[in-house]
Amino acid sequence: MLEALKQEVYEANLELPKHGLVVYTWGNVSGIDREKGLVVIKPSGVEYDELKPSDMVVVDLEGNVVEGRYRPSSDTPTHLELYKAFPQIGGIVHTHSSMAVSFAQAGQSVTALGTTHADYFYGPIPCTRAMTKAEIEGEYEKETGKVIVKTFKDIHPLEVPGVLVREHGPFTWGRTPKEAVYHSVVLEEVSKMAFHTALLREGAMTLNMQQELLDKHFLRKHGKNAYYGQEKIG
Amino acid sequence: MLEALKQEVYEANLELPKHGLVVYTWGNVSGIDREKGLVVIKPSGVEYDELKPSDMVVVDLEGNVVEGRYRPSSDTPTHLELYKAFPQIGGIVHTHSSMAVSFAQAGQSVTALGTTHADYFYGPIPCTRAMTKAEIEGEYEKETGKVIVKTFKDIHPLEVPGVLVREHGPFTWGRTPKEAVYHSVVLEEVSKMAFHTALLREGAMTLNMQQELLDKHFLRKHGKNAYYGQEKIG
Amino acid sequence: MLEALKQEVYEANLELPKHGLVVYTWGNVSGIDREKGLVVIKPSGVEYDELKPSDMVVVDLEGNVVEGRYRPSSDTPTHLELYKAFPQIGGIVHTHSSMAVSFAQAGQSVTALGTTHADYFYGPIPCTRAMTKAEIEGEYEKETGKVIVKTFKDIHPLEVPGVLVREHGPFTWGRTPKEAVYHSVVLEEVSKMAFHTALLREGAMTLNMQQELLDKHFLRKHGKNAYYGQEKIG
Amino acid sequence: MLEALKQEVYEANLELPKHGLVVYTWGNVSGIDREKGLVVIKPSGVEYDELKPSDMVVVDLEGNVVEGRYRPSSDTPTHLELYKAFPQIGGIVHTHSSMAVSFAQAGQSVTALGTTHADYFYGPIPCTRAMTKAEIEGEYEKETGKVIVKTFKDIHPLEVPGVLVREHGPFTWGRTPKEAVYHSVVLEEVSKMAFHTALLREGAMTLNMQQELLDKHFLRKHGKNAYYGQEKIG
Repeated sequence: MLEALKQEVYEANLELPKHGLVVYTWGNVSGIDREKGLVVIKPSGVEYDELKPSDMVVVDLEGNVVEGRYRPSSDTPTHLELYKAFPQIGGIVHTHSSMAVSFAQAGQSVTALGTTHADYFYGPIPCTRAMTKAEIEGEYEKETGKVIVKTFKDIHPLEVPGVLVREHGPFTWGRTPKEAVYHSVVLEEVSKMAFHTALLREGAMTLNMQQELLDKHFLRKHGKNAYYGQEKIG
Repeated sequence: MLEALKQEVYEANLELPKHGLVVYTWGNVSGIDREKGLVVIKPSGVEYDELKPSDMVVVDLEGNVVEGRYRPSSDTPTHLELYKAFPQIGGIVHTHSSMAVSFAQAGQSVTALGTTHADYFYGPIPCTRAMTKAEIEGEYEKETGKVIVKTFKDIHPLEVPGVLVREHGPFTWGRTPKEAVYHSVVLEEVSKMAFHTALLREGAMTLNMQQELLDKHFLRKHGKNAYYGQEKIG
Repeated sequence: MLEALKQEVYEANLELPKHGLVVYTWGNVSGIDREKGLVVIKPSGVEYDELKPSDMVVVDLEGNVVEGRYRPSSDTPTHLELYKAFPQIGGIVHTHSSMAVSFAQAGQSVTALGTTHADYFYGPIPCTRAMTKAEIEGEYEKETGKVIVKTFKDIHPLEVPGVLVREHGPFTWGRTPKEAVYHSVVLEEVSKMAFHTALLREGAMTLNMQQELLDKHFLRKHGKNAYYGQEKIG
Repeated sequence: MLEALKQEVYEANLELPKHGLVVYTWGNVSGIDREKGLVVIKPSGVEYDELKPSDMVVVDLEGNVVEGRYRPSSDTPTHLELYKAFPQIGGIVHTHSSMAVSFAQAGQSVTALGTTHADYFYGPIPCTRAMTKAEIEGEYEKETGKVIVKTFKDIHPLEVPGVLVREHGPFTWGRTPKEAVYHSVVLEEVSKMAFHTALLREGAMTLNMQQELLDKHFLRKHGKNAYYGQEKIG
């Protein structure tokens, strides 16, 4: 069942290692068939280079396995909470991509600092509050989803298609599994840029090299007395 | 028409992902035929691995599409302003390369700090002023070009073949599309070096390891009592 | 002898350059046959792309070479101390992976800052004390092992399967050579994340880009007036 | 003439892009035949993927081209000064590798902070003083060599086989061209480690994640109640 969606979710999962967002099996993509109310998700702990479309697991919105010989990703209950709360979305991604995790570990949102961010996220990518002891010791993965949903109380999930779960890592989503992966790539990229920007703002560039050395190097390569490289022929 | 220039612009566009300067479709290269007054530019939002030379779009200097079945890059009006203001240049590149964007987001110029910079840029690579509300809400991409041109009021565009648009990212140029790409690669590289230099200048290297450990490790590999690796034979 | 273990140790060694953990020959993996009391380890100073399973060296727990035409890794005595002190482990890895070494050089443990760490290491990855002059000038590699063992006086080696040797670098271990390599990959990854987190916690993200520019960029790509990319067809 | 040395120098040059030390043509390797007093060096400005062994240029110790249809590297006079001052060395490398250049631009030596450094460099890798206006405007490349030699007045060139030229970049050397390249790789690696170590020493790791979250994540993967991954079969 749902062979087309399985293929789509399978391909979206393979995009994660290709874009350097995951190490080993750390990451998962799901997609939803809204009409049938069924979710297709990566199996737990299976390596990417052994993964086949038919390994994808089908679960209903209560988390019951409907089809598949593997256990679904342990993060499945988080995905399900998001699908239930955000009817506009069709795919979800979770990774431990390095720079997004660093912001999550620092408990900091990725604020919008430039147009790379603005092209895809309409405002800060929020970091959730810390989870309570009860939430962690209870239905942890489901509670993770609920904390994300609370964080988006006043945010439209298609305007800000991603979140940082504090001391954990990013979840992103989109209208399709493929778009959700795209947003994971963007989130990692804008996190990296924001990190470097934050450090640069502190230590402004006030220094310059020796003027004579600047002259020497530019002029030995350019202008009428240049002597670098080979003679230009004819 | 302009088949040779299309091929040249096509190849220059492919250099961007090859050098790690772009993610997905984030970047564009154009080239100009000065005699005909026509510009060849990458189509908007087409993926690099699907791109063909014949997909390149031909526009005139007012931005009218002269040939091509795709829309030109949405940054086309910026390119056109630069071609009109800088008659010496033959190619333009726009990317969101990571370290150059970080400087743009920090609102900082990349000052010349060493000979790697001096070999290609004769002074600071300037960051533009913030655009006004009117400029952003008006003909935004064209105004972006005008703000760049104003920044170069007193700078020769072939002596400093690139700029950072504040809170946006870099544009570079050159006598050919290929040279413009070369300058994008250099800009990203010198931005990365400048970032690390700025952080190092703050925290000078005053520390040293334990002397006994230095002695032990150097001497177990070198000198007459070395015992690392295999016996040298013959 | 021990052909299966040699193959396993050989394959685990090849994982190190594949995951970017070693440059040239900087790193080694060993595995132990607990019944026979024999350890299989990489030869010293042989390049990875020339390595064959039959090049692996077999030593006993006193470090005597039992089989093999090469000298064993110069770090062999460190491995042996760990095998003797930690009966639960079956494989050991030593690398000079970049971020883990940076923590070792800073004399700092990698504290647990997020779930990526928590998934594999149940608490801080400790940095050993500095070695004494006598330890360094004596049986240095053996003493290195002893200092690691002392550091784990109150830590279970399968709960924290790795350590940073001060001013040197990481050792990791696991129930098998393959698992030990896995822990090396995790250690490098969580060290990188901890580094970025530490820097972010100092300089919190309080900045935001110009609101008009955020509006412009998000809205030119999304919503009913979007003009980026190609017309969606049918 | 010198066909074997040309092959050796050619192969050593190709190692530079392979190890990520050079962009485009930024770098050069030379080797010397001490008996004949002749140096083989890369031609200036020729791209690595077009380079052939027969393109290598042969010069004498005064810099006269003895064989070759190309101009030698513009840094040739620097190489020659080093060969004349350091009779123990057989190969020299110059690159603009990113982290080593960052130290050179910051005017800082790379001090020995750990065993990765100690294995190859017996003490700090020094940064030269700034060159004078007269040196820069005179025989610049030759003067660069002389400033390096002065920096090594009290340092043995085989104990510290490399240097940072201030506001420029690294030169390394060794008994052979291949060993000189090896030292360039090590220099870049230890520079990167020293950079991260310097930043870590300032902001010590005093933070820890939430204890409940650490417990939850470690224990859902390990121990008798683990529920991550697939059931272990058999």
